[in-house]
Amino acid sequence: MKYLVIGGVAGGATTAARLRRLDEHAQIIIVERGGYISYANCGLPYYIGGVISQRDRLFVQSPESFKENLNIDVWIHTEALSIQPEKKQVRLKHLESGKTWDESYDTLVLSPGAEPVRPPIPGINNPGIFTLRAVKETDAIFRFLEDNKPKRAVILGAGFIGLEMAENLHRRGLYVTIVEMAQQVMNVVDYEIAAQVHQHLRSKQVEFYLNDGVTAFTPLNKRPGEASPGMEITLSSGRTITADMVILSIGVRPENKLAKEAGLTIGSTGGIWVNEFLQTSDDHIYALGDAIEFPNPITNTPAITYLAGPANKQARICADNISQGNHKPYKGAINTAIAKVFDITVASTGLSEKTLTKEGIRFESIITHSSSHAGYYPDAMAMTLKTLFDRETGRIYGAQILGYQGVDKRIDLIAAIIRRNGTVEDLIDLEHAYAPPYSSAKDPVHIAGYVADNIMTGRSRHIHWHQIQGCDQNEIQLIDVRTAEEAGLGTIEGAINLPIHELRNRLGEVPKNKTLVVFCGVGQRAYMAERILRQSGFEDVYNLSGGYKTYEFAVQ
Amino acid sequence: MKYLVIGGVAGGATTAARLRRLDEHAQIIIVERGGYISYANCGLPYYIGGVISQRDRLFVQSPESFKENLNIDVWIHTEALSIQPEKKQVRLKHLESGKTWDESYDTLVLSPGAEPVRPPIPGINNPGIFTLRAVKETDAIFRFLEDNKPKRAVILGAGFIGLEMAENLHRRGLYVTIVEMAQQVMNVVDYEIAAQVHQHLRSKQVEFYLNDGVTAFTPLNKRPGEASPGMEITLSSGRTITADMVILSIGVRPENKLAKEAGLTIGSTGGIWVNEFLQTSDDHIYALGDAIEFPNPITNTPAITYLAGPANKQARICADNISQGNHKPYKGAINTAIAKVFDITVASTGLSEKTLTKEGIRFESIITHSSSHAGYYPDAMAMTLKTLFDRETGRIYGAQILGYQGVDKRIDLIAAIIRRNGTVEDLIDLEHAYAPPYSSAKDPVHIAGYVADNIMTGRSRHIHWHQIQGCDQNEIQLIDVRTAEEAGLGTIEGAINLPIHELRNRLGEVPKNKTLVVFCGVGQRAYMAERILRQSGFEDVYNLSGGYKTYEFAVQ
Ligand SMILES: Cc1cc2nc3c(=O)[nH]c(=O)nc-3n(C[C@H](O)[C@H](O)[C@H](O)COP(=O)(O)OP(=O)(O)OC[C@H]3O[C@@H](n4cnc5c(N)ncnc54)[C@H](O)[C@@H]3O)c2cc1C
Ligand SMILES: Cc1cc2nc3c(=O)[nH]c(=O)nc-3n(C[C@H](O)[C@H](O)[C@H](O)COP(=O)(O)OP(=O)(O)OC[C@H]3O[C@@H](n4cnc5c(N)ncnc54)[C@H](O)[C@@H]3O)c2cc1C
Ligand SMILES: CC(C)(COP(=O)(O)OP(=O)(O)OC[C@H]1O[C@@H](n2cnc3c(N)ncnc32)[C@H](O)[C@@H]1OP(=O)(O)O)[C@@H](O)C(=O)NCCC(=O)NCCS
Ligand SMILES: CC(C)(COP(=O)(O)OP(=O)(O)OC[C@H]1O[C@@H](n2cnc3c(N)ncnc32)[C@H](O)[C@@H]1OP(=O)(O)O)[C@@H](O)C(=O)NCCC(=O)NCCS
Repeated sequence: MKYLVIGGVAGGATTAARLRRLDEHAQIIIVERGGYISYANCGLPYYIGGVISQRDRLFVQSPESFKENLNIDVWIHTEALSIQPEKKQVRLKHLESGKTWDESYDTLVLSPGAEPVRPPIPGINNPGIFTLRAVKETDAIFRFLEDNKPKRAVILGAGFIGLEMAENLHRRGLYVTIVEMAQQVMNVVDYEIAAQVHQHLRSKQVEFYLNDGVTAFTPLNKRPGEASPGMEITLSSGRTITADMVILSIGVRPENKLAKEAGLTIGSTGGIWVNEFLQTSDDHIYALGDAIEFPNPITNTPAITYLAGPANKQARICADNISQGNHKPYKGAINTAIAKVFDITVASTGLSEKTLTKEGIRFESIITHSSSHAGYYPDAMAMTLKTLFDRETGRIYGAQILGYQGVDKRIDLIAAIIRRNGTVEDLIDLEHAYAPPYSSAKDPVHIAGYVADNIMTGRSRHIHWHQIQGCDQNEIQLIDVRTAEEAGLGTIEGAINLPIHELRNRLGEVPKNKTLVVFCGVGQRAYMAERILRQSGFEDVYNLSGGYKTYEFAVQ
Repeated sequence: MKYLVIGGVAGGATTAARLRRLDEHAQIIIVERGGYISYANCGLPYYIGGVISQRDRLFVQSPESFKENLNIDVWIHTEALSIQPEKKQVRLKHLESGKTWDESYDTLVLSPGAEPVRPPIPGINNPGIFTLRAVKETDAIFRFLEDNKPKRAVILGAGFIGLEMAENLHRRGLYVTIVEMAQQVMNVVDYEIAAQVHQHLRSKQVEFYLNDGVTAFTPLNKRPGEASPGMEITLSSGRTITADMVILSIGVRPENKLAKEAGLTIGSTGGIWVNEFLQTSDDHIYALGDAIEFPNPITNTPAITYLAGPANKQARICADNISQGNHKPYKGAINTAIAKVFDITVASTGLSEKTLTKEGIRFESIITHSSSHAGYYPDAMAMTLKTLFDRETGRIYGAQILGYQGVDKRIDLIAAIIRRNGTVEDLIDLEHAYAPPYSSAKDPVHIAGYVADNIMTGRSRHIHWHQIQGCDQNEIQLIDVRTAEEAGLGTIEGAINLPIHELRNRLGEVPKNKTLVVFCGVGQRAYMAERILRQSGFEDVYNLSGGYKTYEFAVQ
């Protein structure tokens, strides 16, 4: 058997390694256009920022170690130019010597990844403008930083990689400005979660312009004594900013050229189509990683997942199917993702409110704020959870979490539930390991489950910050149930203050013919107020989801 | 409706609070024998150690706040003496005034907890000997520490609370000695995991005697200038040690006296019997928490769970069933537990090897060592996982994890899988949030799944440290596949060194007619060696589970 693998990083290297373990005697060749295989793409921003101080730590394996340990031939600086599926061969080119030749295969594996989008904006080829995908670009950015000592960086696009680069360039002492087309950073989370990120970025003196894009990069004249001339960046809003360097992180698209030209089926998203066994439309060609599209298990619509976890998981499945015949189905991914953004962690899984709305799926959403571990044990930190679910069936659609500690744990737990079509009941039912340094007797995930359960059983009704903005105060009465001291520090305009511990005795002060919106700091006392009011003759009561805390972040 | 709740902490207070939210107009009374309700039992060791510096942080609610916020009457210093189920009344005694009276109920809730075991050892009533369950005992220990400035503490019993107390007394500068009847600390985990705890305790200068018990406490004569006279402790082994104070943490038993005397059914474990709705054998009496027994969902045998998470979860179910009629079944707990032991975290879920063996359940076990997050990102720490599963069905029975970071996340994920009768396939299939600070592209849980999968498919066979101890070297050949440098630092007696990267060229040196046991540092390279050997004509090959690392800990 002869296996040819195109692409030698997450998907490709892992498939090849597993193939070797399954079949000691097969011939396995990895073809990689770049100069490196098996490196930590996800670590690149941290190497640039100096968090990872040694460059060689980025390399998990090398062509030599692949040969030594796995008896796999790795051909670097070698590009696959085209595939002839009917001949079962690939045209290869050694990029340094220029030599081309045809290489045969029994099975071909495509894991060519994705390429960063580089829009044709005037001036885009300025040498201070970078994308970040592989080691080569990383080295270029690193060298630019060392040689030019830039002071001011602009990040175009505030996705996970954009924000990681913002943090890492900031860490190197640059003044960082983010420019983002959407009204928020991190488009995978919803606005009120992003609003907390905005606040955090402000606290770090990271500048950002939302709802804005770049129309031109204009090189500046080199000033004496400055290594880098820099550029002026014109934004759609008309604003201009200057920068010594720019990171373009506005997105990636699947590397589908080889597959397309070979006549393999390309899906509607531009990703290579594969069946559940990760086999392309040609029986002898498998594909995986960032380059493929696969149905999202929740919506069943095709999607591309640009994540290393799924690529690694697919690799083992792919190798097993290639070596033993198709028997292991891949089950898809729901885009569980996480990023460190300075001191906070932001994570999401499943569908967001934005996506659910776009897909026309009916849902409820709740926001809860909990503590990362028992409040009485030192260093407990606040954590915000947004949970999206179906009111009738309880099915969980998605979750977003922002906090300082333990965010990864909770998103993984909820992702596991979503992946098996789990419900609110499953959130409640989780059996967590509890001791004070790790959680509370009721974990934040349980609390999200309880709150959702109360909505499903009709014991509570949530209203959202955007639903009460500019509402008619003749019809809606806002009631702040926090203490007078708390309310004194800031409340929502038009709210009356009826502290929860006095509410039972002051029911006479509650307006009778209005919709009541109760709120407190995070939603918990307001829920108690809601229960009291609902059982005291007030039917039309809503709890402001996430309380004043979420409201304040979202409207600021 | 009139609800009477006996016990005002984890189970009782939470049930009462939920009852109020369900029914604003019911009469709810909590009866608590101690002076406090709603406090953090789990925080008590940390208050003693000074980690929690303010005593009032231990109190989540007070009788006053329960009245103010929840309109619940809390009678502290009030003991329930007896129940007359047929009259639906309870005899109460106010412990300070001595007054007794009968209080009626419509529904009674029992959450009386558990009491520490105090064996009738001669000298057990020495004033320097303490148990730890509630605030009163905590205050007594704290006062003893302040007043007597003891230097040397002995902890009897090395369960979770014993070890937490060891750490916290050590933190206060005491020299700590642990005495434990079993051959290991933390009986819920298996020996090779406990062996790593032993090593850690040694590194902290905590002394411990295993396989030993106390036969007598003998008071010493008070020496001039010493506040506390101390005592001499005689062990079963004949050894004697001296101590200024002793913490008895050899176990607890359910507070079943009230229930038993009232004629309620008591289970075989001594816990109060309840049905799946947490209702006792009397329709008007519910019970929960440490005092009940409930079938373990894996073995279906009755068990008592002494954990706060389940008690809190039961409380909400219990309240819902009481208020709305029995409709919410409790599903039991698999004893997912965690403890911080100095710098390490030890957690377990489901069944251990010891328990599986005792229950006569056939199982496989594997030990894997992984990194808490990507190795190239700073501060990644080693983590050991033991996973127990059924070889045929893949069903996961239990897991034990020891490490420095992220132990809680992985044990929770595996617990969730066990709770729904999940399999090895589910370990592999977990979709985790990956970025370098939080995990690796393959999480430690995936690795455990992969290794287990290789065993199920027959691609790998594990052998355990205790199976090769003293084995016949004429029949078994140990092969160390680490580098010569690694092997030079210490290996297993009788092993030959054939580094993995040379193995393919040195197959001629591998003995033909022996059982081969390959090992490396943790098991991964040995697995690769196993694959090479098995596909090169050597059939009888085993991988030493957990590698030299586990072997070294376990046999030391
Ligand atoms: C800066 C950065 C940070 C990231 N951070 C995270 C993170 O924190 N978490 C996460 O889950 N994911 C992260 N990712 C995404 C993750 O790295 C990818 O999802 C994953 O690497 C995809 O694997 P792949 O095998 O499909 O592609 P890649 O790993 O990109 O490998 C594709 C390889 O194929 C080669 N190739 C392409 N075409 C050819 C050809 N014609 N001939 C020869 N070789 C070819 C390319 O040179 C490339 O080396 C990050 C990515 C980047 C760039
Ligand atoms: C030091 C310590 C550390 C712990 N750490 C952890 C941990 O880290 N994680 C974890 O999950 N669990 C931990 N636990 C266990 C956890 O606290 C219990 O599982 C939980 O509190 C059980 O709740 P319960 O309501 O059954 O009992 P309790 O919370 O103990 O409450 C029972 C109450 O009932 C009262 N009572 C009993 N009989 C009567 C009567 N006749 N009349 C009136 N009142 C009565 C008692 O005074 C007591 O206050 C710890 C326990 C202790 C003691
Ligand atoms: C380095 C690389 C080639 C390794 O591939 P790999 O060998 O499949 O992966 P790992 O090193 O994680 O090892 C996993 C294998 O070792 C086995 N293993 C791991 N620990 C083990 C242990 N303690 N005992 C026995 N086996 C073990 C696993 O079962 C698995 O083998 P299997 O797939 O045959 O079941 C590949 O992961 C890679 O190139 N990574 C870098 C690129 C990348 O992923 N980038 C994106 C993230 S930054
Ligand atoms: C303090 C104590 C009485 C609180 O009981 P509780 O009110 O049921 O519990 P919590 O404070 O966690 O609040 C949970 C309730 O608030 C609701 N809630 C929490 N956050 C909310 C939010 N942001 N929005 C709306 N509702 C919220 C939950 O839905 C839940 O209500 P429900 O059960 O009616 O659904 C009880 O937990 C206790 O005594 N604890 C200390 C003892 C103990 O547990 N010891 C062992 C561990 S150390």
